[in-house]
Amino acid sequence: MSSPLDNVELQTISFSDLTTLLRQIFVRHGTSLGVAEVLAKNCASAQRDGSHSHGVFRIKGYLSSLAAGWVDGQAIPKVEDVGAAFVRVDAGGGFAQPALEAAKPLLIEKAKSAGVAILAIRNSHHFAALWPDVEPFAEQGLVALSVVNSMTCVVPHDAHKPLFGTNPIAFAAPRAGGKPIVFDMATSAIAHGDVQIAAREGRMLPAGMGVDRAGQPTCDPRAILDGGALLPFGGYKGSALSMMVELLAAALTGGNFSFEFDWSKHPGAQTPWTGQLIIVIDPDKGRGQDFAVRSEELVRQMHGVGQERMPGDRRYAQRAKSLADGIVLPQDELDRLKQLASV
Amino acid sequence: MSSPLDNVELQTISFSDLTTLLRQIFVRHGTSLGVAEVLAKNCASAQRDGSHSHGVFRIKGYLSSLAAGWVDGQAIPKVEDVGAAFVRVDAGGGFAQPALEAAKPLLIEKAKSAGVAILAIRNSHHFAALWPDVEPFAEQGLVALSVVNSMTCVVPHDAHKPLFGTNPIAFAAPRAGGKPIVFDMATSAIAHGDVQIAAREGRMLPAGMGVDRAGQPTCDPRAILDGGALLPFGGYKGSALSMMVELLAAALTGGNFSFEFDWSKHPGAQTPWTGQLIIVIDPDKGRGQDFAVRSEELVRQMHGVGQERMPGDRRYAQRAKSLADGIVLPQDELDRLKQLASV
Repeated sequence: MSSPLDNVELQTISFSDLTTLLRQIFVRHGTSLGVAEVLAKNCASAQRDGSHSHGVFRIKGYLSSLAAGWVDGQAIPKVEDVGAAFVRVDAGGGFAQPALEAAKPLLIEKAKSAGVAILAIRNSHHFAALWPDVEPFAEQGLVALSVVNSMTCVVPHDAHKPLFGTNPIAFAAPRAGGKPIVFDMATSAIAHGDVQIAAREGRMLPAGMGVDRAGQPTCDPRAILDGGALLPFGGYKGSALSMMVELLAAALTGGNFSFEFDWSKHPGAQTPWTGQLIIVIDPDKGRGQDFAVRSEELVRQMHGVGQERMPGDRRYAQRAKSLADGIVLPQDELDRLKQLASV
Repeated sequence: MSSPLDNVELQTISFSDLTTLLRQIFVRHGTSLGVAEVLAKNCASAQRDGSHSHGVFRIKGYLSSLAAGWVDGQAIPKVEDVGAAFVRVDAGGGFAQPALEAAKPLLIEKAKSAGVAILAIRNSHHFAALWPDVEPFAEQGLVALSVVNSMTCVVPHDAHKPLFGTNPIAFAAPRAGGKPIVFDMATSAIAHGDVQIAAREGRMLPAGMGVDRAGQPTCDPRAILDGGALLPFGGYKGSALSMMVELLAAALTGGNFSFEFDWSKHPGAQTPWTGQLIIVIDPDKGRGQDFAVRSEELVRQMHGVGQERMPGDRRYAQRAKSLADGIVLPQDELDRLKQLASV
């Protein structure tokens, strides 16, 4: 993403210091320490990896939702063991990430024992990138697939009004010769956060990303945000995948569809109150051969036909840079964060 | 799809009679009766539902592969129970569909007991539509997701040579007020069978479907088939999904990647020798509420925003018509099938 950082005074902050700062902010604004730790690590990781639409840019929305009483920053997730390969969590109207953390040990135990296991999170708010939810499983040699629905902003293919959320799909798989293969894709033609960033920066979008409030195609991010909507990626296929995400993340978990929750009585609410599904597979149950060696062979072949960058590579490169040189932030943004931490 | 059936003498045949005819053909050309029954039902179902690229059009390829000794029409699948939620099948170099049938009772039992179960099929040939593999699970109230890789014919995004197969993803979910929601999408911009049909009919393709042997974009299906290749749907996102299919259907199952098998010593071979993964979920384990009622609500809302046709609806409409009026085939095609049955 191009950045408007020219002529802006920049500061660097270490990943660890940014995490601590964000943790302080969350605690100061009403979350429990446990929730703050999970969200701070998640948000700092996104910033570290260059996922700017899910980095510190999101803090304002988190705090606005907390202040509105829309999300419960103190919620204690209730983990339910409902089958040899099925775990449910009632997130209690809190964030999805602490619910995942609470269920993770049981989920991994089941996946390794049964070969595959599902985590169904409901009554949860997901306001972050999805790749941080799946990457850790691949680091442990497991394959993970996750879907989360969000809030109505995508027009189904051949429909005339928005219904679906941006409904991302994230996937992670281990490989023998490098960091896990990880992708995280909105099923919308563009992520909502990227539209917000383009609007803030006054940039036009490529064609095919969205429509204005009259349902007409537009490249203006402000027209999309002002009563317009996004389009699915890849026409009817992306639209079908977005529908699948609604079914798996909401209908199957007991969460809300993207169009169901009503935040009108919570001015300032920004976090979608829906559900999330995670499928974790132990690939060693597959054939007995080493999955990571096989996935490495696929990567080798992909490089061989000219695909230079694997999904996740850009994040890993930015991560390495951030860990070596620090995370770069505009001075005024860092000042604002420090102020939020000391309110 | 437009059809060149004008000025062609047509015949109708019942679904049952077509299935019987195809079963005879398979048996006459070297399959066991059990394999013939599964393949005949599959192929006749595709023809019945208007999935013409996977209907009787495929018979020639099936028989050519059998005659080449490339696929074992007598193979007996070996089902392995490897975990509370994991079933493996070695298809023995035979077709994938009989392997699925052999494992299905155990797979369903595990899904209902554990909440989710995986079937990993390897050493298998999949030459059919994928929706027939998932639809029956949804008819039993289960949610099913399947992926199968095929043979190198798709250029990964930003690469310059083909590597992936058309690598379809199929999904099926029950709904309270109608037939299951089912989609079956190639992760290529177009299915390979549709390119073959367009070439046979002398039709040009829309832009963005494929490249010629020099890697240049082309709308000529013959140029794609003659050393060219397909493109993924939806750019880098479809390409990432195609990669995921390789990992799940081949690396995880122990099957071949789309680029690994070598059929050069089997002239006439046409069936990809790869692997297939099926994930079956019991949605009642989710929240305790009725999944099918929730999915029906999603359908209602999709209709409400103007999406008239749900994934699968076109097939269901054609199915109803075929079951009422018979399946329409050109006389010479039907004659050819009858001849093949009596060879």
